[in-house]
Amino acid sequence: MAEPKQGLKIAVIGGGSSYTPELVEGFILHYHELPVRELWLVDIEPGLRKLNIVGSLAQRMVEKSGLPIKVYLTTDRRKAIEGADFVSTQIRVGMLDARARDESIPPKYGVIGQETTGPGGMMKALRTIPVLLDICRDIEELAPNAWMLNFTNPAGMVTEAVLKYSKVKSIGLCNAPIGLLKQVSSKYDVAPDRIYAEFVGLNHLHWITRIDVEGEDKLDEMLADTAGYSAKNVPANEWNPEFLRSLHALPSYYLKYYYMTDAMLEEQLGSLKQGKNRAEVVKQVEEELFELYGNPELKEKPKQLEQRGGAYYSEAAVNLMRSLYNGTNDIQTLNVANRGIIDFLPDDASIEVNCVVTKNGPLPLPLTKVPPMAKGLIHAVKTYESLAIDAAVIGDRDLALQAMVHHPLVPSVDVAVRMLDEMLEANKAYLPNFFHKA
Amino acid sequence: MAEPKQGLKIAVIGGGSSYTPELVEGFILHYHELPVRELWLVDIEPGLRKLNIVGSLAQRMVEKSGLPIKVYLTTDRRKAIEGADFVSTQIRVGMLDARARDESIPPKYGVIGQETTGPGGMMKALRTIPVLLDICRDIEELAPNAWMLNFTNPAGMVTEAVLKYSKVKSIGLCNAPIGLLKQVSSKYDVAPDRIYAEFVGLNHLHWITRIDVEGEDKLDEMLADTAGYSAKNVPANEWNPEFLRSLHALPSYYLKYYYMTDAMLEEQLGSLKQGKNRAEVVKQVEEELFELYGNPELKEKPKQLEQRGGAYYSEAAVNLMRSLYNGTNDIQTLNVANRGIIDFLPDDASIEVNCVVTKNGPLPLPLTKVPPMAKGLIHAVKTYESLAIDAAVIGDRDLALQAMVHHPLVPSVDVAVRMLDEMLEANKAYLPNFFHKA
Amino acid sequence: MAEPKQGLKIAVIGGGSSYTPELVEGFILHYHELPVRELWLVDIEPGLRKLNIVGSLAQRMVEKSGLPIKVYLTTDRRKAIEGADFVSTQIRVGMLDARARDESIPPKYGVIGQETTGPGGMMKALRTIPVLLDICRDIEELAPNAWMLNFTNPAGMVTEAVLKYSKVKSIGLCNAPIGLLKQVSSKYDVAPDRIYAEFVGLNHLHWITRIDVEGEDKLDEMLADTAGYSAKNVPANEWNPEFLRSLHALPSYYLKYYYMTDAMLEEQLGSLKQGKNRAEVVKQVEEELFELYGNPELKEKPKQLEQRGGAYYSEAAVNLMRSLYNGTNDIQTLNVANRGIIDFLPDDASIEVNCVVTKNGPLPLPLTKVPPMAKGLIHAVKTYESLAIDAAVIGDRDLALQAMVHHPLVPSVDVAVRMLDEMLEANKAYLPNFFHKA
Amino acid sequence: MAEPKQGLKIAVIGGGSSYTPELVEGFILHYHELPVRELWLVDIEPGLRKLNIVGSLAQRMVEKSGLPIKVYLTTDRRKAIEGADFVSTQIRVGMLDARARDESIPPKYGVIGQETTGPGGMMKALRTIPVLLDICRDIEELAPNAWMLNFTNPAGMVTEAVLKYSKVKSIGLCNAPIGLLKQVSSKYDVAPDRIYAEFVGLNHLHWITRIDVEGEDKLDEMLADTAGYSAKNVPANEWNPEFLRSLHALPSYYLKYYYMTDAMLEEQLGSLKQGKNRAEVVKQVEEELFELYGNPELKEKPKQLEQRGGAYYSEAAVNLMRSLYNGTNDIQTLNVANRGIIDFLPDDASIEVNCVVTKNGPLPLPLTKVPPMAKGLIHAVKTYESLAIDAAVIGDRDLALQAMVHHPLVPSVDVAVRMLDEMLEANKAYLPNFFHKA
Repeated sequence: MAEPKQGLKIAVIGGGSSYTPELVEGFILHYHELPVRELWLVDIEPGLRKLNIVGSLAQRMVEKSGLPIKVYLTTDRRKAIEGADFVSTQIRVGMLDARARDESIPPKYGVIGQETTGPGGMMKALRTIPVLLDICRDIEELAPNAWMLNFTNPAGMVTEAVLKYSKVKSIGLCNAPIGLLKQVSSKYDVAPDRIYAEFVGLNHLHWITRIDVEGEDKLDEMLADTAGYSAKNVPANEWNPEFLRSLHALPSYYLKYYYMTDAMLEEQLGSLKQGKNRAEVVKQVEEELFELYGNPELKEKPKQLEQRGGAYYSEAAVNLMRSLYNGTNDIQTLNVANRGIIDFLPDDASIEVNCVVTKNGPLPLPLTKVPPMAKGLIHAVKTYESLAIDAAVIGDRDLALQAMVHHPLVPSVDVAVRMLDEMLEANKAYLPNFFHKA
Repeated sequence: MAEPKQGLKIAVIGGGSSYTPELVEGFILHYHELPVRELWLVDIEPGLRKLNIVGSLAQRMVEKSGLPIKVYLTTDRRKAIEGADFVSTQIRVGMLDARARDESIPPKYGVIGQETTGPGGMMKALRTIPVLLDICRDIEELAPNAWMLNFTNPAGMVTEAVLKYSKVKSIGLCNAPIGLLKQVSSKYDVAPDRIYAEFVGLNHLHWITRIDVEGEDKLDEMLADTAGYSAKNVPANEWNPEFLRSLHALPSYYLKYYYMTDAMLEEQLGSLKQGKNRAEVVKQVEEELFELYGNPELKEKPKQLEQRGGAYYSEAAVNLMRSLYNGTNDIQTLNVANRGIIDFLPDDASIEVNCVVTKNGPLPLPLTKVPPMAKGLIHAVKTYESLAIDAAVIGDRDLALQAMVHHPLVPSVDVAVRMLDEMLEANKAYLPNFFHKA
Repeated sequence: MAEPKQGLKIAVIGGGSSYTPELVEGFILHYHELPVRELWLVDIEPGLRKLNIVGSLAQRMVEKSGLPIKVYLTTDRRKAIEGADFVSTQIRVGMLDARARDESIPPKYGVIGQETTGPGGMMKALRTIPVLLDICRDIEELAPNAWMLNFTNPAGMVTEAVLKYSKVKSIGLCNAPIGLLKQVSSKYDVAPDRIYAEFVGLNHLHWITRIDVEGEDKLDEMLADTAGYSAKNVPANEWNPEFLRSLHALPSYYLKYYYMTDAMLEEQLGSLKQGKNRAEVVKQVEEELFELYGNPELKEKPKQLEQRGGAYYSEAAVNLMRSLYNGTNDIQTLNVANRGIIDFLPDDASIEVNCVVTKNGPLPLPLTKVPPMAKGLIHAVKTYESLAIDAAVIGDRDLALQAMVHHPLVPSVDVAVRMLDEMLEANKAYLPNFFHKA
Repeated sequence: MAEPKQGLKIAVIGGGSSYTPELVEGFILHYHELPVRELWLVDIEPGLRKLNIVGSLAQRMVEKSGLPIKVYLTTDRRKAIEGADFVSTQIRVGMLDARARDESIPPKYGVIGQETTGPGGMMKALRTIPVLLDICRDIEELAPNAWMLNFTNPAGMVTEAVLKYSKVKSIGLCNAPIGLLKQVSSKYDVAPDRIYAEFVGLNHLHWITRIDVEGEDKLDEMLADTAGYSAKNVPANEWNPEFLRSLHALPSYYLKYYYMTDAMLEEQLGSLKQGKNRAEVVKQVEEELFELYGNPELKEKPKQLEQRGGAYYSEAAVNLMRSLYNGTNDIQTLNVANRGIIDFLPDDASIEVNCVVTKNGPLPLPLTKVPPMAKGLIHAVKTYESLAIDAAVIGDRDLALQAMVHHPLVPSVDVAVRMLDEMLEANKAYLPNFFHKA
């Protein structure tokens, strides 16, 4: 990438998100290493109100900083993408109502309802992948050298779809790895760059197999004290200590859906009975945030945003853009093409893995330990993911059925058939590939 | 194998089995291609009564045939093995009582109880593998050139254990593949050697991906008519036709435990409630068979044996011995070391695959189609199997727990811990590696 | 392949070859297993005289047999191919004059001159591959279900080109493997089907790593007595016994060009000095054969044909057609796509390997031993082959140069550049891809 | 590695080398990042004179620096190794006389004579590997946590031997990669850490497939101007521009022995005729250096050392120690175990590849481009290397013969047999494994 004369152009697809102030804060803080001149916040028509609210806050934040960054608000995606250096995506096809359905339909069949894991995540993938590929068509045409940073969930599947079905240079990002580093960093009071944590697996399905703090192995200590490694959006059931000790690895908190399926499901059923679900909670938090954002006196990211659940997302994004721009060769945990790193998965499968971020993109680092226990589950979930990706791209019900049947959380063909029918029908408006084929 | 001067010596470990008359019938029918001179039926002390009954029948059958085969009955395993050309194993450590526990404990935790699949199969493996390896020590010493034909279930795991932990030349055998050939052969009225059926997967976990009858693809026809491909010991729930069509492969009937888990479990719970389980049924059938066998007028295999559930086992065994002895280079479906055939599994994993049977042993044939849907489940089950094998050999509770947790039919760590505790305790007498370590 | 109502149609491209009588003899001898009804001998205009001579002999042979086979002579390739069940190719682009140049130019640069190995083989590949792919276009259109049996040298490269650049079902054939079997069969006085010889490597670059006669290992005996395993077209320098013993494998006689390069080159230079080369010798033998063939009294394959050098070619062809037609599942050594058999080569590289010939084509058998010594040379030659194949298809001088530079028998870039210039120029008439691009 | 209380202990095996002042200079310059407290220079009895001369210079250099480093001179290797943090090896078994033979014997047979490439390199490996493994035994016992940095040539083979046959944590180092970075850095006037050069291959057999300067691809420019990328010890024949252009990669200057074999050999023969060889030249340079070193007024590295040929060796060493000690995660080109990076080589083969240097050792980076042309030669040389390593360890003449036969620069079995006989005999004193087996 040649040095841009006029500074960098960034396009944020889904710019009306409540996360945007964090991103803007990052651009301001790291301006000297990442000279952003144009920040384009794009959203769709129905999101215009939020875009205007959060966009105005962004403009006030920039103004206060005194930096020569210009913030543009638009619904014209192509204009935003044209000539961009980085495109980030943080969209939610069908918005929080669709999420509520992803979370509430599966429990009716005795199956985990979650927005990235299980049948809910699959429906989200079916809705989202075609839209992302549509964005990629624009990038291929209007900004072929841009890097696309994908935060859109299910991030691993979306990234794999883009790797397989477009030419866009794309990287998938999650906040879980940076969250772990923060936790270790705070526990041992060391800078994150003195920690080497090795992640093995897929997005929302990783195991951490080594945690070296200044070269010393702290994995066993971390296994004995897992309290802190969690997230707002995953209930905090406790790990069985005997299990963790004999696993010799720290599982992602998303793995609770697989390792504690019964307890997690019970909790979901309890919440649903009380009329609560995670989507509703998030909706309310968002409402409150936008009320805050609308205050013309507010000129910085409000504290309350940190309770939203997606902590560190924007920090991860700014870190990655900065490293790509400067070729810092530092190590970050990213979602990229496998290319032999996990030896039993296809080369073009997306995995979540430590990478050296060079000016020409991330180079994945080989794994020094792979827990034999994890192989089957990784392969089972990747099997489901790859089937679901193809189902999404083609709009193929047969593939969608096979994907759902082979998801490890789905107990039978019979349940899969009935649940798929209901979920497809409920998402009809967002599945043109399935329902309105040319 | 040099031409034996005096004909072949066969040792049958577990010779007091009710299947033995079928095997003897096979030796008699194929004597001209497989000149057996010594048939040693071995059993343990508690099985002596059955050994004598079935052994006497074997002697009467041979006498009637007029062939120069000598049948020996013994509890001295080493004497039977010494100098043998073939050793076949068909043992049941803990006998039918242990099986009853394998089948009844898991359903208490809402988990499938089956003697080869799931936690029941794992307990059987933990009991059986050390005994088989003990037999291998004898073969290594007393008959190092012998082929061991292993029918002992779980045949895939036992075969893998022998491949990894002994030098014995071993092949695992199952009656399911030959059963499919029989069914296709009868449906299309062609000789079995005009059929090419390709099996992909593991023992009791295979998919049939092509069925060519005289060179013509009959897979779709077979998928539309699966009624006949089943077995006495697996309940006959019907496959969902949409599922089969979009799978493009015919699943083993054992796969019903994975694809119809809920219905299969319900059926088991129903049977248990009525005080029935498969082990009890088999016990009764066996009693009836031995009553028949004891009749001194009986000089042939009784018809009733065919209802026992293990149809074609002995035919498979005699076929394999005959092909090894003569180097016929015909194709049989066997359990052997993977060595790259299923590209995502380790080289020393056992798989169930078509092989050319040469005089120097089976050479596995490459797979022409691997259903992408099946990969995850194959890998998940193999992950469990390999952990359980090592647990059995070392007597390691940590590995046993990890194996059980990672079995696809086990819903949570919590269930795994509790179920494992009960099952280990219930099998204490047969698990010296776990409970009476040196 | 459905049972053809009217018997089989065979098209022989290059039917005017002196080998044709052997092929016809094969069809006559094996008529009951391979009911040929139409045999189409095709050749190009300049070969018409020979086609008529050998074609008339073929007709007399068939007439004498009394079988209902019809022999057609034609220069209309498409008519011959249309609806064929088998197409065999045995062509020589540029005829024996081109071969003479392949054999005489390299020695001027101190390099082995041979028609299949080294720069000579590369020029033959550059001339031949486009013509073969042209034939494939006709087969794809006019006989899409036909099997193409390719005898045209360099058979490994031609087969790989067809595998990569056409949809024709193609198999490459060489007479060397059957020649070894004949020799072992005669040495030990056993039927060929009682021998298991394992071939590892590429066409004209194989090592034989096991020779089991009725299950007994005879490799060491064969290594101590290699006299008989050679061919008319390769000079008979003796192997160093210490080398063979420590190699633990019997090298193809074509490997003498690599293992005895200096002596083989000296011999070539000596012959060339005396005005002799192999092409000239063959030319003369051919003349004599056609004189014999022209005799209207001759109604069978004349003995003299066996001295021609390509013994067993036609036997190999008829064997393969017969096994494909009947689905005999017997083992033959063929040139097919690698697909993981040699683990360091690409899946679509052609290799020479034992295969089970099923009705749906050959399935390669896994290798039980791979000599570590051979790996580098196999990979080096395959590297050259794949570059040369692409050079031939595209007509790309850069790739041709890289191919020649990286051939193990070419000593330097400088020699490669000069030799390539001369050889391309000398073959101008047969290299339209290089010299007359659209 | 826990923070050492008293600073680091470094043992330099072969400390009497003329390179030592450069290493000492490096330790002085980088003391703040690499706090060396004890520097042990070890040599064998016959090298004692040189050790004392260069060791005294080292002591004067340290004294002048005022740093608290203590320099020890000893012939007691075990004392030097005990408790060391880093052990570097730079030994020459048989000294320059053996090198002279390595370089002069092969040309008598028309084969390249070079100290690391070809039969000369093989003899060096046979002499050196057992000595290195002996050193490893001491490290395993006395400094099991030490990193061994191996500069001893042939560095790739020695490193592979250590990886395969010891438990020492070992890394092989060469000055060629750092030399390229220096050249690019000077050509484009940028800091080396703004350059990403990708090395593919083995030690002394690599290709550089990308050269990005501040993110811009400069490979083609570098291919057009290769003058600077060479070394004192390799004659400077010019690359053919057409060849380089179509190769799309910059070959190591050591590859001239393969790509310009004829010209390189001619030059060697010319030099030998004039009584010169590289070993003699080096001998003389060394004499002059030690005369300089002996001057008690000299207290710094003399300029003349840079003409010695091994420029940057010590810089590479200090860089690596510093990065390992501090866990800088920077990228260096090192010789490490393959572990899947070059997909056709075994996991335990040594390769030369970019690595991220973490506190726990180097993690190799995946290759983004592998020139297809290079694969065969890489595999052929690795085949030879692995055979030669095993020959060295076992002292097996059969393996040594196979290694030599299969070296791409050896033209025939006959030459290999005769050359091996002469070379083994000439090195008898240094080959106890071959000549004085227990």
